[in-house]
Amino acid sequence: MAAIKPLAIIAGVGPGTGASVALRFAREYTVILLSRTASSFDSVVSEIKSNGGEAYGIPTDISNEKSVKDAFAQIKSNHADTPVAAAIFNAAGGFVRKPFLEVTLGEWDGTWAVNGRGAFLFSQSTLPLLSASTNLPHPPTLIFTGATASVKSSALFTTFATGKFALRALSQSLAREFGPKGVHISHAVIDGVIDIPRTKEWLTEVPDAKISSNAIADAYWHLHTQPRTAFTWEIDIRPYVEKW
Amino acid sequence: MAAIKPLAIIAGVGPGTGASVALRFAREYTVILLSRTASSFDSVVSEIKSNGGEAYGIPTDISNEKSVKDAFAQIKSNHADTPVAAAIFNAAGGFVRKPFLEVTLGEWDGTWAVNGRGAFLFSQSTLPLLSASTNLPHPPTLIFTGATASVKSSALFTTFATGKFALRALSQSLAREFGPKGVHISHAVIDGVIDIPRTKEWLTEVPDAKISSNAIADAYWHLHTQPRTAFTWEIDIRPYVEKW
Amino acid sequence: MAAIKPLAIIAGVGPGTGASVALRFAREYTVILLSRTASSFDSVVSEIKSNGGEAYGIPTDISNEKSVKDAFAQIKSNHADTPVAAAIFNAAGGFVRKPFLEVTLGEWDGTWAVNGRGAFLFSQSTLPLLSASTNLPHPPTLIFTGATASVKSSALFTTFATGKFALRALSQSLAREFGPKGVHISHAVIDGVIDIPRTKEWLTEVPDAKISSNAIADAYWHLHTQPRTAFTWEIDIRPYVEKW
Amino acid sequence: MAAIKPLAIIAGVGPGTGASVALRFAREYTVILLSRTASSFDSVVSEIKSNGGEAYGIPTDISNEKSVKDAFAQIKSNHADTPVAAAIFNAAGGFVRKPFLEVTLGEWDGTWAVNGRGAFLFSQSTLPLLSASTNLPHPPTLIFTGATASVKSSALFTTFATGKFALRALSQSLAREFGPKGVHISHAVIDGVIDIPRTKEWLTEVPDAKISSNAIADAYWHLHTQPRTAFTWEIDIRPYVEKW
Repeated sequence: MAAIKPLAIIAGVGPGTGASVALRFAREYTVILLSRTASSFDSVVSEIKSNGGEAYGIPTDISNEKSVKDAFAQIKSNHADTPVAAAIFNAAGGFVRKPFLEVTLGEWDGTWAVNGRGAFLFSQSTLPLLSASTNLPHPPTLIFTGATASVKSSALFTTFATGKFALRALSQSLAREFGPKGVHISHAVIDGVIDIPRTKEWLTEVPDAKISSNAIADAYWHLHTQPRTAFTWEIDIRPYVEKW
Repeated sequence: MAAIKPLAIIAGVGPGTGASVALRFAREYTVILLSRTASSFDSVVSEIKSNGGEAYGIPTDISNEKSVKDAFAQIKSNHADTPVAAAIFNAAGGFVRKPFLEVTLGEWDGTWAVNGRGAFLFSQSTLPLLSASTNLPHPPTLIFTGATASVKSSALFTTFATGKFALRALSQSLAREFGPKGVHISHAVIDGVIDIPRTKEWLTEVPDAKISSNAIADAYWHLHTQPRTAFTWEIDIRPYVEKW
Repeated sequence: MAAIKPLAIIAGVGPGTGASVALRFAREYTVILLSRTASSFDSVVSEIKSNGGEAYGIPTDISNEKSVKDAFAQIKSNHADTPVAAAIFNAAGGFVRKPFLEVTLGEWDGTWAVNGRGAFLFSQSTLPLLSASTNLPHPPTLIFTGATASVKSSALFTTFATGKFALRALSQSLAREFGPKGVHISHAVIDGVIDIPRTKEWLTEVPDAKISSNAIADAYWHLHTQPRTAFTWEIDIRPYVEKW
Repeated sequence: MAAIKPLAIIAGVGPGTGASVALRFAREYTVILLSRTASSFDSVVSEIKSNGGEAYGIPTDISNEKSVKDAFAQIKSNHADTPVAAAIFNAAGGFVRKPFLEVTLGEWDGTWAVNGRGAFLFSQSTLPLLSASTNLPHPPTLIFTGATASVKSSALFTTFATGKFALRALSQSLAREFGPKGVHISHAVIDGVIDIPRTKEWLTEVPDAKISSNAIADAYWHLHTQPRTAFTWEIDIRPYVEKW
């Protein structure tokens, strides 16, 4: 009888980082995908299954307490006694780029809904599972996806940067609190445009000017495999031609 | 007939920084104090008046859109055509220090209510007034009060640090957007305990181990007097014996 | 009989920051100017004297141990028992901007000669004097002049940035070691072009796009006046239109 | 006939990071070890050979121009037409921890000799080789080993931190200049004690409190394998229980 594969739980599954991370972690783990709509994860689940892996999607509004609680109740019910090896917070709010005085309160609070409340709910749901997991091949790991705006707050980016700075603060404090308990917390500063269908027409002057999301997934997997003697909290990832 | 004195509008007036800043800026300007309850600003208003200055308090919930709109409607009504020389965001949410898994969603959202939504509402209300002001002795200035947790997110400080990182992001983006329009945006990292009645018993081993809020006010005033050729975005302020 | 005025010792006196700082501090202190050649400080000494102040220049190669020792021997001999209130390290090495593979070892070591060895020799010479001074109106202060390259190491700036990062490291460690002893150590990130004769033709599209060195001097003076309850280690100073 | 294996050139080979990195990269490449004395690399060379790999040591004073030139002349002579896939700067100067006023000028300049001049000579020697290499499995890579003191300059660490800040500045500027040319430049902040014979008695209260140098080597290898769409400039590496 085959051993039960540990779980990797991923919040935020678009066509880029989320999908690549899901496919990468599905080589070793059963993957649970949380996304607002099934259309976001259906094709990823199919691809994982066709590769011989196991994956499940649960439509979840990550910024809604009840929705998140329901999703994790379902995970615990369907995967009782299955250790959780990894959790990746890859959700992103709507991206707003505009003069500050034109930002609406709804847009403003929206950055918090995902990067603040969403990250909180996901962390409070996954950390007890990660902390309790044993017999894992690698230390249990919680990774947050950041952006250029996590460390530099540019003009016209008040909304996005505020959310991303907040997310980074959460990840840093959690790294200091949960690292000593053996849970690896990381934050990745993704500094550049990701190569997905929506960005196909951008940055076409030189080859490879956009980030391969598979390479991000490989970096996340490397972070996950680090032993507890050598945890990385933060890495930056950018294309070779990126200005920074 | 005396010239009309410009306004300085201060959000968050406790016994420390807010009061000292109000007293300092009241030497030159008419001061408007926004605080949740009149008991927070009454004694400061009295002290300013007894010094021969002018000050007004308006009970305001800085995280509530209607309350903030009402306060600024009142300011515009009572001080029509009075230029606004300075605005200081000194509001602070409730301070929570506890293990992350014990933080409630209410506490979590509370840090955003003040540091996120409050700072947004205050900035959107004051920036048009600052930008429109002319014939001022110094460039119009918007200063945000930060903390150690603005740049370092320690264990057990998820809530506080998340709010303060967010506030810093807002201030940095605004500095880049409004600086070129002549409005000076600053952020102060207050790194230490402030010397107020509540902290009287703390850190008593060596003299002067707590920050004098009057010294903070002097620093804010210096920032305000900087010409536009030499704006400072960020300063740190800490007692000589502080570990950092 | 008039009280003896304390000393301010300034290393690096060009037509910009050094001269303005000398003039500003000369309003309160006797100023000692250290510069490689007398032609750098002669006009500043004259201007201070014509303002009714006191100033002395000593030709000094700040990167040369013997030259620095000789200068301070002369200071101690001529101003015995005079307290030293402030020291400002404003020396700058030759500025090199070129592809890394074209940098010569001489250019490379040159950045260390000034920003490394020069700062070391100046700090070791002034800190004992600052630490021993008593009855000063403000805490004794040692300020280092940095640049954009102190915190961002751009392409083609290997030489300059390496020196400036090193200087910043020195200042930060000294702040932590000598702050608790009551000596105020500061570092200023001057982020922009200074308005001096040599830069007269630059950045002329908008007014005030270059930093007034008098404003830098005012900021340094403010730092010097901070009480020990509220020391600032680092400030940034940039024109309102500067991109950063 | 077997293809010629590319070279990896490593400066600084002690019992920790240098040896582990050499062993890791020797799985794929021929490794050249530069160290002041043969006793530093002899055992590593032997171990690599006994594993079936290829390695050569060249006694080199990395801070001495002639010594470095001689070493690279020897490399080019013995390995003509062999591409260089990776270079790792792992040299460290003597570690000095003492009050600033007790630091000698010799100790002070010593930090520059290795972290400044040594890194310069190594970079100028390896970058042309890395840039010219073709048909490599991964982008050519130059990695610098940093420390806690690369980003935080503590009291009593003036010497060490000054060197490490300088080294980080070099690496950041090189990343911006050579990244667009396809050469991957990285900087690792090693934040903790490395588990080597010399530190055997330290930090023994909890298990795994010291960094495994093999884990550092795995991280360096991961950095090396990143495609040019996803270069990491900086990672931090620390034990799970490290305070930071």
